[in-house]
Amino acid sequence: MSVTIDQVWAAAERIAAHAHRTPVLRSRSLEAMIGAELYFKAENFQRVGAFKFRGACNAVWSLSDAEAPAGVVTHSSGNHGQALALAAQSRGIPAYVVMPEDSAKPKLAAVRGYGAEAILCAPSLAAREQTCAEVQARTGASMIHPYADARIIAGQGTAALELLREIGRVDQLIAPVSGGGLLAGSAISLAALCPSAQIVGAEPEGANDAWQSMQAGERREIIRPETICDGLRANLGEINFGILNDHHAQILTVSDAETIAALRLVWERMKIIIEPSCATVVAAMLRYREQFAGQRVGVIFSGGNIDLDALPWCRG
Amino acid sequence: MSVTIDQVWAAAERIAAHAHRTPVLRSRSLEAMIGAELYFKAENFQRVGAFKFRGACNAVWSLSDAEAPAGVVTHSSGNHGQALALAAQSRGIPAYVVMPEDSAKPKLAAVRGYGAEAILCAPSLAAREQTCAEVQARTGASMIHPYADARIIAGQGTAALELLREIGRVDQLIAPVSGGGLLAGSAISLAALCPSAQIVGAEPEGANDAWQSMQAGERREIIRPETICDGLRANLGEINFGILNDHHAQILTVSDAETIAALRLVWERMKIIIEPSCATVVAAMLRYREQFAGQRVGVIFSGGNIDLDALPWCRG
Repeated sequence: MSVTIDQVWAAAERIAAHAHRTPVLRSRSLEAMIGAELYFKAENFQRVGAFKFRGACNAVWSLSDAEAPAGVVTHSSGNHGQALALAAQSRGIPAYVVMPEDSAKPKLAAVRGYGAEAILCAPSLAAREQTCAEVQARTGASMIHPYADARIIAGQGTAALELLREIGRVDQLIAPVSGGGLLAGSAISLAALCPSAQIVGAEPEGANDAWQSMQAGERREIIRPETICDGLRANLGEINFGILNDHHAQILTVSDAETIAALRLVWERMKIIIEPSCATVVAAMLRYREQFAGQRVGVIFSGGNIDLDALPWCRG
Repeated sequence: MSVTIDQVWAAAERIAAHAHRTPVLRSRSLEAMIGAELYFKAENFQRVGAFKFRGACNAVWSLSDAEAPAGVVTHSSGNHGQALALAAQSRGIPAYVVMPEDSAKPKLAAVRGYGAEAILCAPSLAAREQTCAEVQARTGASMIHPYADARIIAGQGTAALELLREIGRVDQLIAPVSGGGLLAGSAISLAALCPSAQIVGAEPEGANDAWQSMQAGERREIIRPETICDGLRANLGEINFGILNDHHAQILTVSDAETIAALRLVWERMKIIIEPSCATVVAAMLRYREQFAGQRVGVIFSGGNIDLDALPWCRG
C-alpha cells in the first residue's frame, strides 16, 4: 500500500471547505543568514495551530455515510487528538480520543473543548492501543492513526501541494519528521510537481530514528527519545518509511540547543509563534547552510502550539 | 498647525515603495471572547517590526533635495531610532541617533546595523535635547522628533488608512497611545473615512498622561511613568494632544497584569509575536468588553519587538 498524488489532490478538495489556506511567508533576515530563497508555509496559522488538522479532516471526510455515524477514535496526547476532535465536529460525528492519564489539563480541556470524549488510560503504548481497541469494539468507531494511515498522509501532503501551486518550482522542500505523516505526504506532492527536487526531513538528534532508518535501509526504532520537541518523539510508521525510502528522503539532524536558537530567531525576526518541533527546519538549514545556499527552498512550518510557561529559556 | 487627511494620503504615496503593506488578521477566539468583529492591522510585520517605520520614512522622503544630503537626527532609545536609521538608508542619507549611554547593546547594534551613527549622551531628557541640538549645529541634519511632528503623524496615519481602505466601515478604531503620533494619525484617517466612528487609545494605568490630559482638557505630564510597556512611557506631544482633543479621542487605561494576560492570549491564539505596548489594545477591549460588544472594530497592532529574556512571566 502506498499513497498517490491523486489521493493528495482528492484530499485537497475534501478539506477545502474546512481547513485554512495558510499564507506563504518570506523573511529577508533568514534569507540573508542562510543565503537561500525561502518560502515558509505557515501551518502554525492552520486550525488547531498545526498541519495535523489537514490529515484528520481528510480522514473524517473520507468515511462513508455508513461508517461516519459511529465516529472516530485515536490515541494522542497532542495535536492529532485536537485535530481529530475538530474534524469530527465539522462532520457532526463523535470522536473518542484516548489520552494518557497524566496528560496536561490544558490538553484534556482542548480535546473536550472541540466536543470529543477524552478517554484516559495508563501512560504506555500497550495501554493506549488496548484502550483504542476497546473503544472500537464498543462504539464501532473508525480508528484514525496519527500518521501510519494513507488518508492522514494524503491530507498532510496538501500543505506542500498548496505551497508548490502558489510558488512554483523549488530545489528542496524541508519539513520536520516524526511518525512521517507530514514528510511522506510532502514527498508525494514534491515528486509530482517538482520531480527533480530533494525532499528533506529535519529531526532532533535525540529522536533520530528516521535518520537511522534511512541509513540502514530498514525501519529502526528508538524506545526512549530525548528531545524538547514534544511533537517529534514518535517512530516512523511502516508505510511512512516506505514512502520516504522510495523518494530518497534526506534526513538532517539537529541538537535541541540549535532548535531553541532557531525558534528564538523566528520569533524575533519573523514575529510569529512556532513550536520547538517546527523550529527544527530552521535549525537544519542553519547547520547545513552549504546545502541550501543559492537554492530555492520550500519550508513547512508545521505548528505553533506552545506552553509559554514551559519554554526552555524560562527555566533559569 | 495641524495635520490633514491630504497629508496622510501624500504620506501613503511617499512610503509605498519602502514600507510593507501589512496584512489584516482575524481571530475567531478573540472575537468570541470580546463579542465583536475585529480586524487587526499587523504592524508587527512592518519593517523594523513596528509602525514607526511609516512616520520615519515619510519624514525622510519629505525632505527637499537641498535638505536631504545633510541627513536626519533624532533622540530615541527604541523603535523610532531604528526606523529613522532604516528610512535614511532607503534615501542614502546620514542618520544620527542620540541614545542614552545606558542603552541596551542590542538596541545600539540595531541602529548601527541600519547604517546610522549612534551618539551617546547622559540618560536625561535635557542631555538628549542638547546633544541633538549640537549634532544639528555641527552637521546641518534635520531634526525628526519621534511623535510631535506633522510628517511623523501623517506617516503613522497611513496604517489606519490602509486598514480602512481594505475593510471599509468600522464603528471604532483602537490603537495604543504614548506620545500620540500613532493615535493622532489614526484619528485623522478615521475621521476622514468613517466620520461617525469613535477613535480609542489604550494606555497603561502607570503612564496615563493621555487619559489625564483628555479629562482635564489640557495637556498633563507624568514625570516617572511606571509600566512594563517600554514603548508607552512618553508624554503626549502638544500637537498630538490638540489633534486628539479635536477628535474627541477616548482613552481606556489598563493594568500591566491585564496587558500581560492579553499578550499571552495573542501569542497563544493568533500565533503572532506582539510586544507588551501593543497588547494594551487587546487588554482594553477585554476590560471594557461592553463598549465593543456587537461592534465592528479596527485594531492597530503597533509592533512586535521584544526581548525574550526579559519577558515578565520568565522572572519567576
